[in-house]
Amino acid sequence: MSQTFSRIDQLAQFVGQTVTVRGWVSHLRSSGKVAFIVMRDGSATPLQCVLVKKQMPEEDWARFAALTLESSLAVTGEVRADDRAPGGYELGASALAIIGASPLDYPIQPKEHGIDFLLDNRHLWLRSPRQVAIARVRHEVEQAIHDFFYERGFLHVDTPILTASQGERSGLFSTEYFDEGMAYLAQTGQLYGEAAAAAFGRIYTFGPTFRAEKSKTRRHLTEFWMIEPEMAWYDQAMNQDLQEEFVCYLVERCLTRRAAELKELERDISKLETVKAPFPRIPYTEAVEILQKKGSNITWGDDLGAEDEALLVADYDRPVFVCNYPKEAKAFYMKENPDDPRTVLCADLLAHEGYGEMIGGSQREDDHDKLVARIQHEGLPMEAYGWYLDLRKYGTFVHSGFGLGLERTVAWICGVQHIRECIAFPRMMHRVRP
Amino acid sequence: MSQTFSRIDQLAQFVGQTVTVRGWVSHLRSSGKVAFIVMRDGSATPLQCVLVKKQMPEEDWARFAALTLESSLAVTGEVRADDRAPGGYELGASALAIIGASPLDYPIQPKEHGIDFLLDNRHLWLRSPRQVAIARVRHEVEQAIHDFFYERGFLHVDTPILTASQGERSGLFSTEYFDEGMAYLAQTGQLYGEAAAAAFGRIYTFGPTFRAEKSKTRRHLTEFWMIEPEMAWYDQAMNQDLQEEFVCYLVERCLTRRAAELKELERDISKLETVKAPFPRIPYTEAVEILQKKGSNITWGDDLGAEDEALLVADYDRPVFVCNYPKEAKAFYMKENPDDPRTVLCADLLAHEGYGEMIGGSQREDDHDKLVARIQHEGLPMEAYGWYLDLRKYGTFVHSGFGLGLERTVAWICGVQHIRECIAFPRMMHRVRP
Repeated sequence: MSQTFSRIDQLAQFVGQTVTVRGWVSHLRSSGKVAFIVMRDGSATPLQCVLVKKQMPEEDWARFAALTLESSLAVTGEVRADDRAPGGYELGASALAIIGASPLDYPIQPKEHGIDFLLDNRHLWLRSPRQVAIARVRHEVEQAIHDFFYERGFLHVDTPILTASQGERSGLFSTEYFDEGMAYLAQTGQLYGEAAAAAFGRIYTFGPTFRAEKSKTRRHLTEFWMIEPEMAWYDQAMNQDLQEEFVCYLVERCLTRRAAELKELERDISKLETVKAPFPRIPYTEAVEILQKKGSNITWGDDLGAEDEALLVADYDRPVFVCNYPKEAKAFYMKENPDDPRTVLCADLLAHEGYGEMIGGSQREDDHDKLVARIQHEGLPMEAYGWYLDLRKYGTFVHSGFGLGLERTVAWICGVQHIRECIAFPRMMHRVRP
Repeated sequence: MSQTFSRIDQLAQFVGQTVTVRGWVSHLRSSGKVAFIVMRDGSATPLQCVLVKKQMPEEDWARFAALTLESSLAVTGEVRADDRAPGGYELGASALAIIGASPLDYPIQPKEHGIDFLLDNRHLWLRSPRQVAIARVRHEVEQAIHDFFYERGFLHVDTPILTASQGERSGLFSTEYFDEGMAYLAQTGQLYGEAAAAAFGRIYTFGPTFRAEKSKTRRHLTEFWMIEPEMAWYDQAMNQDLQEEFVCYLVERCLTRRAAELKELERDISKLETVKAPFPRIPYTEAVEILQKKGSNITWGDDLGAEDEALLVADYDRPVFVCNYPKEAKAFYMKENPDDPRTVLCADLLAHEGYGEMIGGSQREDDHDKLVARIQHEGLPMEAYGWYLDLRKYGTFVHSGFGLGLERTVAWICGVQHIRECIAFPRMMHRVRP
């Protein structure tokens, strides 16, 4: 069965030969004696099939009239190179078979639809060229992430989704766990990643994380994917060097291998071509001064809001690190900054063009007693952190890590405003179907 | 900081040179004037450091006496090639610094521990050579999976973990989802994968799946990772061809790149070297006859139990497909077998050596009305499957797919009896910590 069928992305090797392609109707037009079927099969840019009445059996030609949007079909014909064709090739059809007809009420028509309607029909919306392009960029980013770490000797570790409570955190989804009480869906794999770094040296996690927060911004999902590398013997400077190298690698990979998709998305790639190391590194305290001069009401100690972030990156053509935030604004596990103990050794990486925070990272507190004091100060339950404290008790080690939000990164590379389009089936406050 | 330190897996390029390696103490021994530190850093086989009293500063030599298991340290010395050394190299130490001491009560000592104790200390148990080896094989399998599908033009799709109910299934973890009622943790991504196959052609998922089942066998976890490819225009024969190619690829990759780890695990690799296509394909009906002749009580219509599976594969040196099970024993979405409508077009792939089911796969029912009848027959709520039926309504297509259990595959390749060792932090009925 397979031998006689070809995918659109393989047609380059069949120029001048007759092949059969299967897929779905994206677009139809006809001028009486010549008809055109634009056909998609998910592998590449849709293919234009050209039907000439007098060059086909009468019954095959007659089938064209019955075709509807999203009908599945098989078209046999000669592969022709044609620079005017979207993918560089077209098919001169000699036979047409309808496999599965599609009624005329196919929900997604070539017109404007509301976002709720599109999300209700996400299983069909995924077939649209823009959604296919985003999905293909997402996959490229994912494979690039795995390749980047594999090439550098990092071990991939899958940290648990179901976890016993690690304190009074808010925004947790919970479920009954047999006779063990409640379990919670992980908001991060980091603490487990630190244990793994002590075992395997350099590791990264790649998994879904959850936030049961009632936020409805274009940068939030309740279920999203995070990549969290953790490195033994890396201080915060090395951590930021790695992040720079990592982000440049992902961008370069998409520019090289997903140019067609970025074009489909009308992405201004000149904004990506400038993404080169080194990225500016602005200490938080300096960032506050810059923002105040630019008119922001921020005062020292506040976290940066989305508007502050946009204001700060406006002058740059690449992502920007904001370093060493106030201790009180950040998580308990970040290492105190020896040069200014009001602050911690951390950095957020803000995408330029106003896409906001893409990475948060820090050096971890490796002093057992200082970490105990931080846990007490924050009012967290010490007993939940026994195993985490063990990492400082038995052979403590300098280590650092970061978390990259996958959908935010894909949104930025694609130039998409809302991250809900950057995952196949987005989960938001009012959205758990389909 | 980074420039002056080396990882154990990089030492081959520094023979004859002096480097500093950081890591943790795995093993110590001394004969008065010569001392040995076996040191692990997670990157490779632990490194033997040789300390000679008269070749070191007195204070560095004195530190050796204070060393304990799992202390973190930095050792500086000359890299020497030595065929007798476990990794092929040793370090002739000239300096020793203790970074983080480890108290003498380090829980995991070189003696037998009970499994509950080890699982309570999983964050430390991960540092043991056997556990490091399994983790490294797991990562190799994971990267090989991504590479296999990337090279073949499959698109990686992340299907949702939180889903609205898809019927009366048992064994579901549930959580309150804002004002939307209950949401459930996914047991499979397949139905979403089918929607994605209609959009992208060939896809695969790679994510955690959940079973809230009170089973306590060595082949069950409540949280485990599954890989679920789904292919437009593949019938069941092509589906099985792909599975064969896939499993051979994974085994070959581990044999080639993880030989040291398989040796550490004392795996009999002759049992893996015979894993070559084609795999035997035994129809279910024939399997029942074979089993009955071998003394099993199975009758036509029963699913195969673990003992039946072991009995059936005993004659083979590679995995075995059992094909076309009775309809009633399998899920509603499997396509009826036109040659014997009592059965469906499906296959389970059973690992040889008694490791049991590794893959379950099938061709999917693509006839809208037959699928509706199956949903009614099983008493499933039709309204929950509206979007799934849409895939048969708008351009239906022949398609097939399968699910590979990651931990079972890793257990089989490693020759590990219980899959709880094949994931970093296993989740079982009585185990949600650490």
